[in-house]
Amino acid sequence: MRILYHLPLSPYSRKVRLALGEKRLPFELKMERVWERRPDYLAHNPAGTVPMLVEETGLAIPDSWVICEYLEEAYPDTPLLGRTLAERVEVRRLVVWFDEKFGNEVTRNLLNEKVMKRISGRGNPDGGALRAGYANIRFHLSYIDWLAETRQWMAGNMLSLADFAAASHLSCLDFIDDIAWDSAPAAKDWYARIKSRPCFRSLLQDRVSGMTPPAHYADLDF
Amino acid sequence: MRILYHLPLSPYSRKVRLALGEKRLPFELKMERVWERRPDYLAHNPAGTVPMLVEETGLAIPDSWVICEYLEEAYPDTPLLGRTLAERVEVRRLVVWFDEKFGNEVTRNLLNEKVMKRISGRGNPDGGALRAGYANIRFHLSYIDWLAETRQWMAGNMLSLADFAAASHLSCLDFIDDIAWDSAPAAKDWYARIKSRPCFRSLLQDRVSGMTPPAHYADLDF
Repeated sequence: MRILYHLPLSPYSRKVRLALGEKRLPFELKMERVWERRPDYLAHNPAGTVPMLVEETGLAIPDSWVICEYLEEAYPDTPLLGRTLAERVEVRRLVVWFDEKFGNEVTRNLLNEKVMKRISGRGNPDGGALRAGYANIRFHLSYIDWLAETRQWMAGNMLSLADFAAASHLSCLDFIDDIAWDSAPAAKDWYARIKSRPCFRSLLQDRVSGMTPPAHYADLDF
Repeated sequence: MRILYHLPLSPYSRKVRLALGEKRLPFELKMERVWERRPDYLAHNPAGTVPMLVEETGLAIPDSWVICEYLEEAYPDTPLLGRTLAERVEVRRLVVWFDEKFGNEVTRNLLNEKVMKRISGRGNPDGGALRAGYANIRFHLSYIDWLAETRQWMAGNMLSLADFAAASHLSCLDFIDDIAWDSAPAAKDWYARIKSRPCFRSLLQDRVSGMTPPAHYADLDF
């Protein structure tokens, strides 16, 4: 069986779970506590990051970007990167936007400070990082709201990896109740649409010991 | 004419210049002072980063990852991402390794502190960052040395984007004379080979006002 090494609140792992699910590729999830730096894991992925996908053939594929490009080439049915060259530029531009810009400006400051530090025993959240995260998320949420208002999906008319990248970060932040959905009604509608897809189900069932998500987290009609 | 917006010492811009050169795609270079946040530039690339490629058709393609995937799809002659699925995984894994891990652990700590801060008027280098950069570069240089010792090119038997990613970071650090080449003889041989390719010439001619690279920087038999 195909194995995906992951962490429940890693948006990069979630993006790959959504891509695998949408492409109807069965896989088994294994949690990898990356901070333990397990030698067997590092042998396949010296960077020591999640996610890593291991195919039944034994091919090990680290990093969410590498995995998603691989999935698109190995399993081209249900394309997730767009059809024309211009569409593919816009999908990938937004994946970079969410995974790097949103990731550095919001997810790192809020999720890593509040959750990852505690889980991996690296101390208390840094107040400056939290303040920066809360300031940045407002700007990002209105950009997502504008995209959702002017397009059917994040990158245009087609559901794509851009939607999965955005929804992965947002779903992790929603788990810690850090999203002011009422300030962004179009983004909220778009998120409700993507949340009700079958591939999203397993994400909403994730639990992290010692943490309870808000009531609306797994509610499809929130 | 195709235009590439860049900065001379941006390794991400250099990687794209090498890919364009190797694929023999003519282009004009324009320097973009990203810290000035020019509205016309941000309209095409809201992230405000270099590089950005603009095709003659007007299609604007931001971000070095997005550009390189685009180039491979639009101009598949002279493939730079490998042929088999497994080769493509290894090429992309190493591109991520150099652009993210090497980039964050070495380039950001040395080049950004010493050069980019000065050019963009953001003050003096931070001592802690420089110490971290010098500690990390030793580890990274021995990994590159090991790759060069055991393989013809970084990702295997074929010249690829992994070589261009590695050489782009190293060439920027070599410009500020921060590479102890004598400690990594196989890496030095590999770099001399890649440096003598025609696509590398324009990189070695870059000058930055107020800075003089070491004598060996542009010497092909260094």
